[in-house]
Amino acid sequence: MIRHIYWDDGSLYILDQRELPLKTRFLRCRDADAVAAAIRGMALRGAPLIGVAAAYGYALAARHLRTATPGNGSAGGWRKELSRAERALLESRPTAVNLRYAVERMKEKGRQLLASGVTAGVLAQSLKHEADTVFEEDLAANRRMAELGASLLPPRANVITYCNTGALATSGIGTALGVIRHAWRRGRIAHVYPCETRPYLQGSRLTLWELMQEKIPATLLTDNMAAHLMSTERIDAVLVGADRIAANADTANKIGTYGLAILARHHGIPFYVVAPSTTVDLRIPNGRAIPIEERSVREVTHLRGRALAPAGAKARHPAFDVTPHALISAIVTERGVIRPPGREGLRRALGSR
Amino acid sequence: MIRHIYWDDGSLYILDQRELPLKTRFLRCRDADAVAAAIRGMALRGAPLIGVAAAYGYALAARHLRTATPGNGSAGGWRKELSRAERALLESRPTAVNLRYAVERMKEKGRQLLASGVTAGVLAQSLKHEADTVFEEDLAANRRMAELGASLLPPRANVITYCNTGALATSGIGTALGVIRHAWRRGRIAHVYPCETRPYLQGSRLTLWELMQEKIPATLLTDNMAAHLMSTERIDAVLVGADRIAANADTANKIGTYGLAILARHHGIPFYVVAPSTTVDLRIPNGRAIPIEERSVREVTHLRGRALAPAGAKARHPAFDVTPHALISAIVTERGVIRPPGREGLRRALGSR
Repeated sequence: MIRHIYWDDGSLYILDQRELPLKTRFLRCRDADAVAAAIRGMALRGAPLIGVAAAYGYALAARHLRTATPGNGSAGGWRKELSRAERALLESRPTAVNLRYAVERMKEKGRQLLASGVTAGVLAQSLKHEADTVFEEDLAANRRMAELGASLLPPRANVITYCNTGALATSGIGTALGVIRHAWRRGRIAHVYPCETRPYLQGSRLTLWELMQEKIPATLLTDNMAAHLMSTERIDAVLVGADRIAANADTANKIGTYGLAILARHHGIPFYVVAPSTTVDLRIPNGRAIPIEERSVREVTHLRGRALAPAGAKARHPAFDVTPHALISAIVTERGVIRPPGREGLRRALGSR
Repeated sequence: MIRHIYWDDGSLYILDQRELPLKTRFLRCRDADAVAAAIRGMALRGAPLIGVAAAYGYALAARHLRTATPGNGSAGGWRKELSRAERALLESRPTAVNLRYAVERMKEKGRQLLASGVTAGVLAQSLKHEADTVFEEDLAANRRMAELGASLLPPRANVITYCNTGALATSGIGTALGVIRHAWRRGRIAHVYPCETRPYLQGSRLTLWELMQEKIPATLLTDNMAAHLMSTERIDAVLVGADRIAANADTANKIGTYGLAILARHHGIPFYVVAPSTTVDLRIPNGRAIPIEERSVREVTHLRGRALAPAGAKARHPAFDVTPHALISAIVTERGVIRPPGREGLRRALGSR
């Protein structure tokens, strides 16, 4: 598995996923602003990974307190600097809630440390340690979801997946793609059909690349082929991730997921959402209240700088859509499988949260 | 309206749609093989236009009888040459039935002429005249479908369309896009959302270009955005074309159409198929029997020669899919609107055929 995010010598190194699979280039992020810019620019993506990167971004901000705020060496000055980093990170992407979860967790840890009167050095070290914990918890959640999700699949299943929910989207083996990886090792996967996922092509560039690296049999589809495949081949399940899960179990995920859920329902194919519990946002009552990021239309009208449409073309670019819980067969979290998905099941699985 | 197919000085000139909207280049076809190659290579596409081009291709074959078959100036030798051209044209694309319709019509005309003992000059001239008639009938069918289809739309409708069914796909103003053009002039269209239509991007390259040329308000969608739009905006209808209509009114059209029909049904949005009666193939009992062309996977994994997926990627590329008649609200032909679509309605509309 590729090491796509790591800390070295006081910097966070992030694999630039925009150039995959053609180039393997790392960005060196020295401060929180650099991490926020990498998230905003989609150098890295995937809700769980965004959360982990944001935690490290916050830790980077703490590291700079001694040097970046001269004459400001007080808890009050530090707080101001950390708040600035917090805002920059929170504003980098609006839809993934894991980002907010991670930043709020780091902020709370920072608040406790500042209240106990630690030195800047201890503060930086402790926040780096907290970010490591966010990373490790995501890793553990991946493993648990993989086991729980794989048990839902019949032997030698043909599955469709969407966007990239693999190692590149998380700290570990992935969410939906983690389930597929684990199921493959257990002989439960015959073939995987990743949809290319326009406009960013996470499916063809990232998911297919991850599948090919592990020699899992995979055949690429354009997004508009899924329905044809469901009606002409045996498809046993559709597996996707999520960027935010509302309190009623409606989920936001990459644009196109909602359509795929309708197609799966029409063909009687189980539709599974795989996401860590940090993706659940109980403050959001239902899917309609989830903020949907509108990205630049140039990402639709151009590909790698080249025009796909006439000059001056208007386009839409909602980056996500909402799948109502009624279209989801089960939500797989590290805390358990929620089936059927709904308000009660979600509360039960999350327990104390 | 652009003149995208024309006859001049014994050659057929075809606008090379692969380079649109970036370049406007014409191919000069001097014989039937050149026309077959242009169809196979998708220099021109759209079921009705393929039929018209094939008719002219056949006429070109007749033109060469005197020069291309020296010492062979007999009806028997001519028949052999025409049969060869017929096969080349028929094999260029397998799904569009308009192609077969046009070639068989030309062949029958040729048979009658040969039986009456005409000279090569008269044969060539008469077959060119027959191709002109195929062209003009398609033109007239476009106009009639536009009127019939526009009457199905409410005032100031927002519509989704797919692939390219415009002037570039036909001899006239188009099928589904012809309806949109006509409805726009009558004040029945507020906004058009063309789906880009992967992998060939006929929607972004051709349909959006046609709409922008006529200043019809249009916003491009990637194919996977249609469901989100249907659930978050007012969409009044989905309008698509067809490459073949079976006897039970199941229709084959560009890959992705079937999925769009399921999404429209899920959201209670009327789904209209607009196609001339030459698209109907009563010899095919239902959609499952329609041959679906599988094209090169390189068209999916590469765009304009550049890789979108890892080297060695496997992909699928069915060029069409089948929409069962139960998902279609109405089929608009120049012989009338078939509503609901089915075996009886189709027979009634086609009358004597």
